Amino acid sequence: MAQSRSEERVVNNNNNGFESIDDGDEHNSQNGKKKLMKEEEVSVERVFQHQLVPSWRKQLTVRAFAVSLVLSILFSFIVMKLNLTTGIIPSLNVSAGLLGFFFIKIWTKFLQGSGMLKQPFTRQENTVIQTCVVASSGIAFSGGFGSYLFGMSKRVADQSSDTSDYKNPSLGWIIAFLFVVSFLGLFSVVPLRKIMVIDFKLTYPSGTATAHLINSFHTPQGAKLAKKQVKVLGKFFSLSFLWGFFQWFYTATDDCGFQAFPTLGLKAFENKFFFDFSAIYVGVGMICPYIINISVLLGGILSWGVMWPLIKNKEGDWYPKGLGESSLHGIQGYRVFIAIAMILGDGLYNFVKVLSHTFLGLYTQIRDKQKENVLPVAGQDSPSTPQLSYDDERRTQVFLKDQIPTWFAIGGYVAIAAISTATLPHIFHQLKWYYIIVIYLVAPTLAFCNAYGCGLTDWSLASTYGKLAIFTIGAWAGSSHGGVIAGLAACGVMMNIIVSTASDLMQDFKTGYLTLASPRSMFVSQIIGTTMGCIISPSVFWIFYKAFPDLGTHKSEYPAPYAIVYRNMAILGVQGFKTLPQNCLLLCYIFFGSAILINLIKDCLGKRGRFIPLPMAMAIPFYLGSYFAIDMCVGSLVLFVWEKVNKAKADAFGPAVASGLICGDGIWTLPASILALAGVKPPICMKFLSRATNAKVDTFLTVSG
Amino acid sequence: MAQSRSEERVVNNNNNGFESIDDGDEHNSQNGKKKLMKEEEVSVERVFQHQLVPSWRKQLTVRAFAVSLVLSILFSFIVMKLNLTTGIIPSLNVSAGLLGFFFIKIWTKFLQGSGMLKQPFTRQENTVIQTCVVASSGIAFSGGFGSYLFGMSKRVADQSSDTSDYKNPSLGWIIAFLFVVSFLGLFSVVPLRKIMVIDFKLTYPSGTATAHLINSFHTPQGAKLAKKQVKVLGKFFSLSFLWGFFQWFYTATDDCGFQAFPTLGLKAFENKFFFDFSAIYVGVGMICPYIINISVLLGGILSWGVMWPLIKNKEGDWYPKGLGESSLHGIQGYRVFIAIAMILGDGLYNFVKVLSHTFLGLYTQIRDKQKENVLPVAGQDSPSTPQLSYDDERRTQVFLKDQIPTWFAIGGYVAIAAISTATLPHIFHQLKWYYIIVIYLVAPTLAFCNAYGCGLTDWSLASTYGKLAIFTIGAWAGSSHGGVIAGLAACGVMMNIIVSTASDLMQDFKTGYLTLASPRSMFVSQIIGTTMGCIISPSVFWIFYKAFPDLGTHKSEYPAPYAIVYRNMAILGVQGFKTLPQNCLLLCYIFFGSAILINLIKDCLGKRGRFIPLPMAMAIPFYLGSYFAIDMCVGSLVLFVWEKVNKAKADAFGPAVASGLICGDGIWTLPASILALAGVKPPICMKFLSRATNAKVDTFLTVSG
Repeated sequence: MAQSRSEERVVNNNNNGFESIDDGDEHNSQNGKKKLMKEEEVSVERVFQHQLVPSWRKQLTVRAFAVSLVLSILFSFIVMKLNLTTGIIPSLNVSAGLLGFFFIKIWTKFLQGSGMLKQPFTRQENTVIQTCVVASSGIAFSGGFGSYLFGMSKRVADQSSDTSDYKNPSLGWIIAFLFVVSFLGLFSVVPLRKIMVIDFKLTYPSGTATAHLINSFHTPQGAKLAKKQVKVLGKFFSLSFLWGFFQWFYTATDDCGFQAFPTLGLKAFENKFFFDFSAIYVGVGMICPYIINISVLLGGILSWGVMWPLIKNKEGDWYPKGLGESSLHGIQGYRVFIAIAMILGDGLYNFVKVLSHTFLGLYTQIRDKQKENVLPVAGQDSPSTPQLSYDDERRTQVFLKDQIPTWFAIGGYVAIAAISTATLPHIFHQLKWYYIIVIYLVAPTLAFCNAYGCGLTDWSLASTYGKLAIFTIGAWAGSSHGGVIAGLAACGVMMNIIVSTASDLMQDFKTGYLTLASPRSMFVSQIIGTTMGCIISPSVFWIFYKAFPDLGTHKSEYPAPYAIVYRNMAILGVQGFKTLPQNCLLLCYIFFGSAILINLIKDCLGKRGRFIPLPMAMAIPFYLGSYFAIDMCVGSLVLFVWEKVNKAKADAFGPAVASGLICGDGIWTLPASILALAGVKPPICMKFLSRATNAKVDTFLTVSG
Repeated sequence: MAQSRSEERVVNNNNNGFESIDDGDEHNSQNGKKKLMKEEEVSVERVFQHQLVPSWRKQLTVRAFAVSLVLSILFSFIVMKLNLTTGIIPSLNVSAGLLGFFFIKIWTKFLQGSGMLKQPFTRQENTVIQTCVVASSGIAFSGGFGSYLFGMSKRVADQSSDTSDYKNPSLGWIIAFLFVVSFLGLFSVVPLRKIMVIDFKLTYPSGTATAHLINSFHTPQGAKLAKKQVKVLGKFFSLSFLWGFFQWFYTATDDCGFQAFPTLGLKAFENKFFFDFSAIYVGVGMICPYIINISVLLGGILSWGVMWPLIKNKEGDWYPKGLGESSLHGIQGYRVFIAIAMILGDGLYNFVKVLSHTFLGLYTQIRDKQKENVLPVAGQDSPSTPQLSYDDERRTQVFLKDQIPTWFAIGGYVAIAAISTATLPHIFHQLKWYYIIVIYLVAPTLAFCNAYGCGLTDWSLASTYGKLAIFTIGAWAGSSHGGVIAGLAACGVMMNIIVSTASDLMQDFKTGYLTLASPRSMFVSQIIGTTMGCIISPSVFWIFYKAFPDLGTHKSEYPAPYAIVYRNMAILGVQGFKTLPQNCLLLCYIFFGSAILINLIKDCLGKRGRFIPLPMAMAIPFYLGSYFAIDMCVGSLVLFVWEKVNKAKADAFGPAVASGLICGDGIWTLPASILALAGVKPPICMKFLSRATNAKVDTFLTVSG
């Protein structure tokens, strides 16, 4: 069977035969980042040197955007499902890359067959698709449908300690809101582009990995492997989709079916330890690093296995009896606020850490540049210095060929900020215009920091900045002036700028740089992708919202855990700690401190620190339970065993299997929602009863006929 | 990965290098019969010509019988489970061969390591194990624990139309019964040995296939493949065992768990169409030819999908209302008697067919021999005629070296028959001594016919002869003199002679002939195996009987379907057709006739007839439902797809996977029975309720707390 190849060999082979680059389905796989980094030393661009780079207009083809549209819808569903179930969203770049390539290949093959193919499929076009899909599906995350935006709703408010102020979701205002805030990031990222990519030569690990994936697809030697990967992806896509379909029949209510399978016994099930046969999280587990899965599981064991049962014993002492599972003044309060404390602790630590890295990095960079007398000013052609490699030279040349003027970027930013400032108070009357102006003044600085930090560490602090906005704007507005909604809305404005700026779009520019895609075509693709996202994401959310009436509640299949977390953070910011149950604050301090301490130990230990769990990941099951952690660990285990049995095969096909599992289960939610909307309900309940209860039920059923 | 090898290549290679034959773990796989037949043309014995054949006493080692004992227990459990669930028992020769080889290899490796190995593992010893295991586990089938013997019990009688006479099973009399009837076959087979194997040169396809399997194990080239096969078997054994274990937890009652999973919907489940996730029948489906699985499924669709629903519409017209599912005067009567009619029709057709083949074959054989002036008389050394191949010459020489005198065989037969005649009426007072004498006078003739027919066609008519005994002896005794029990007991006596004679032991002698095992060592091994079987099988049955108190009833996990079929046949023989519900007799005639007609068409069409279903296989689900048919078809499908994807791999590892699935699930019944005996009951019920019922149950559970 196929073996994963070292890219070096591919490159070496290529130096002898270029004739087949354009003629069909040759591509290759990507390996781990390490190999890719190593490969950097060998010239990639020499492989492609006989291939003409199309002009930026030619890179923007209709077929590319058609494929992007299809993929955007697909990934919006997947991201939305993940948002609303656990909030853990793995990188879907490989899936997007493979599927984008696959669709265009089919398209071009079809056209080739009918003799209508005018333009061959280039890696630049592939990058355009990737960029568009990332921009579009990014909004499914930054739109906050599982966090701040849905946290405003009455349904979530009813579960929080402050029910006074809410704003229910509605398709109209969500789309309007996204349109006025999402494009700002785009314009703020443009002037940074050259500083980060060319001058600072930042790594942007995800963007680099994606670029290598795309480059490898278009080398002749990878043909067989990529074809096989797509086949594997397709197989697991179907399996996962059919499995979702099969499960559906047995899920008459939320307590039924495989999602309520007490795999580890009824007692464990009561404490949310069970394997719920969810293909999507098995896939997520295969993509996430082992340490994240282990952290999540550890967090689950610590909380649902140890802490909550202990705290429950204090019922009547620490908190009043009979409040049930879902009151924030009871056990649920401990779950939510301890999770928040841990997330904030981890966030704060990383905020400080990345920020200090950023400033230190900036300082040394500027000092070095001054020594070399090369000014790190954007907007001028920085002449390629003689020590540049062939690849860098060629890439820089292409990257700087198509300019986007700085005045255009600044003008755009100001114009959109003005529209935004005028519009937003009409959507959220709690969000005053001067809050917005303050955010827009501060944002570019934060965006710069985040873009730089992300380029160095691949770690985007978008949600941390969002939380910062919740607390500051919330406290500023105060509880009497709707501070909760103001805080959540401010969080949305902040996150939409920061996310698009740092993690997604800057990574895209790096990808474009490495695949010789024109910055202009990238920019247009980002604008089109963002437009798509502003319409697709709210619509997808709307389908979920209408199809599953208990969405966002504690017992639902879609609990949207972060919605309540975000709302409670906003309440915390406005009202302080007075709403917390007894001893909860103390526990919050402990976990806040532990999160910082664990991070500190992890960093101090250096390489050995990789065995220390991540506090952020540990906090997720605090509120949700461990079932998805068990799914993810099953995914880890499968991958682990596979790697032991056949490392090469696991490396080559693991991401494809995982993508297939994620996409299949994710897209199954589309027909599932349609069925729900049409009022078609599953016919059977697969119920799990204890021996004793079963005897009672059997008697009841015999009696009642 | 491993590829199945044509044996020819192995043989050719071997002609150059024999030095490694004795030194360890070399073996090879067996392919389909066709290839084996082809290979016959190439000399196998030349491969082994430098290997000394041990004396017959040396072939009988302690380790061989220790391993046989372990495997006998294993296979007794498997056969017993199959007996008591559906009565479909696939050939377990390959599993026995692989496992026997595996155990001895471990044993010799271990001893070799400790320096205590005195004797290398030879193929003769392997044959001895195989013979012993076949003889022993054969009794689990011919003992009639799922058919005539259990059909005598009160529990089955209560479900039949004649409850007057019964004999409940008890460990004591069952063992006694088996001891006095099981050894007769052994002695009657001895004089036939040379006639069938040497003079008539009959094929005995199963015996030949087993011999080739064993031969291939001991050739050096097969080492890697057989090792891999054992590994695969072990893997699927564990998976199947663990799956059985996992299922157990959710099976609080017989209506719970995966065995009651309405895979195809609740409506289909009511009509017994569902996949019950049983690994054992998926394995059986992989071993059985496609046409058998398809036949079983067709039978299920015809009966449970079409006929029974139609007949149920006639409730109140054809048969009284309100009799329920299990009364023989109601719908159950149609199920049982139509199945019996079809089985008898098929049996009669094949009886006539095989018998005419037998006489025709015998006639031409004797004519040819007379022409050649070589007399087909047993008991004399027939000198090897010059046209004999090297293989035949060597095999005949070894086969004839160790004689078992004819006087010994005849003396043994007469002595045991005398003991048996004296003892049996004490066990079954309904079975008069003169019935027994008649059976023992007729039996050797029938045994000869069956041994010859089986050698030609691989089709043993043992159960048909047993049915013959039920009807004749039952009718002779008459209803007033306990004809039902007399008939069933006579069936047992007959089957034990015929089964051992024809299908099992004669096949073993053929295996021995082809592996140069001494007839004497085979005979001793058969005696030891039979002794083991006479003790192990009743004990295993006893464990099932005690562990599952509802064994043999309609709703149980172990319905023992043939027990009620056999008892009803006996009642039919004694009382005639008067007990049948309305129109049932007409339907029985139709199905009896159809069975004959289908067989006739099948035979007339020749090779194209392979697409015509087998009536015998079609009749099985009539009474039981289609769930196991669906399991078996899943097995078929898996194998079919596997063969499409990778034929070589499927051929090499298919039987190992199937054996693993069968053995794992089969042996899980051992701990399952122990748990049941210890009173440990599964804790959870996985229940399947319709949407409406589920709502009712949920309300009930909320109300009752």
